[in-house]
Amino acid sequence: MTKLRVQGVAFDMYGTVVDVGAVAEACKAVASDPVAFNNQWRAKQLEYTFLRAAMGKYQDFWKVSQQALAFTIQRFGLTVNLEQRKRLMESWLQPTAYPEVAAALPRLKEHLPLAILSNGSPMMLRVGLKRAGFRSHFRWVLSADAVKTYKPSPRVYRLAPTAMKLQKQRILFVSSNAFDVLGAKSFGFRVCWINRAGAPLDPLGPEPDIVVRGFDELEAVITA
Amino acid sequence: MTKLRVQGVAFDMYGTVVDVGAVAEACKAVASDPVAFNNQWRAKQLEYTFLRAAMGKYQDFWKVSQQALAFTIQRFGLTVNLEQRKRLMESWLQPTAYPEVAAALPRLKEHLPLAILSNGSPMMLRVGLKRAGFRSHFRWVLSADAVKTYKPSPRVYRLAPTAMKLQKQRILFVSSNAFDVLGAKSFGFRVCWINRAGAPLDPLGPEPDIVVRGFDELEAVITA
Repeated sequence: MTKLRVQGVAFDMYGTVVDVGAVAEACKAVASDPVAFNNQWRAKQLEYTFLRAAMGKYQDFWKVSQQALAFTIQRFGLTVNLEQRKRLMESWLQPTAYPEVAAALPRLKEHLPLAILSNGSPMMLRVGLKRAGFRSHFRWVLSADAVKTYKPSPRVYRLAPTAMKLQKQRILFVSSNAFDVLGAKSFGFRVCWINRAGAPLDPLGPEPDIVVRGFDELEAVITA
Repeated sequence: MTKLRVQGVAFDMYGTVVDVGAVAEACKAVASDPVAFNNQWRAKQLEYTFLRAAMGKYQDFWKVSQQALAFTIQRFGLTVNLEQRKRLMESWLQPTAYPEVAAALPRLKEHLPLAILSNGSPMMLRVGLKRAGFRSHFRWVLSADAVKTYKPSPRVYRLAPTAMKLQKQRILFVSSNAFDVLGAKSFGFRVCWINRAGAPLDPLGPEPDIVVRGFDELEAVITA
């Protein structure tokens, strides 16, 4: 990877290396408009992590996801029993491998050491990576829980250079989430935005070093 | 105010003491769906303050509002010239007094010393309070700019006890914004949520001490 001159790669988890389609699927069992329900749940989950980071009132991502679900159920005026809530939450423990990611990871790890750096709780990451069949690809699985705050706090990003024993500018951070790209670039990583949907760049800046449509393109850049 | 035993009141600005209807009005000049445009602009403005607070990359609320506007224009695929952008931004400098607030403030300030505590930049607060005719009602006008971060960071809320020379539990903080209610209560203020729309409480908690529909009810509580 001559151009970027990085010596390791750290990946965001949800929506980046694993597909959370099971969550969208689970929403169909409770909501008449499951897409809107899922979007509201996801937006509130994110908002709660931002608020907790700003307030300095950390609770782990499993708990935050439960709280965001409670808000969403209330907002949609639904009656959802305990068993249904449990099934909705457990859908977060059933991520699936993106086919193109499953193909690329075994080759990528031959080139550079790989890490996960996620807001997910240690339990969620452990279970999710195992179910997706990805655990053995990552030398490090780093959770924001270790520093009790959330991305985009620089305290979370700092976990990667510390664990990987690399300078931050020698790490390529890969995420599909616009806010995570901003936060990681602002921290000082080299950054790759996985833009699967072909969305426009967030003009807030700073811009990522590279933008790709998927792991095929990412692999081509890393192994060039 | 026997029950709450507070000795001063601090108010959020936008949507709490002043109406930003001029912003919604200005959106009609550029967007075919001005409500959606305004909602996106406001949501992004909030998100950028949360992200900047978490990243530790402060820029003032005027600048953040411009960046959120740029995002929204891009997202809606609009062509908006410089003059139109200027008019959209200047609508933030034309807040109007809620009639019920204009009636209550002169009486409230006879009971307790009043402050503004807002994410707005000093320029925005100065111009806005003057235009709404409210400047003389507030002994203190406190901007998050003084500590270069945003609510719900406790560093912003701390400006009020410091300036007002009161313990935080002796200050009633009044806001119409759910995230601000959470942040202020988490900080340690007594908190009143102005719930003009009759929305459900955010289950994230902690809950506000009092919930009212407007300043009429607030005045009744304070002067009881």
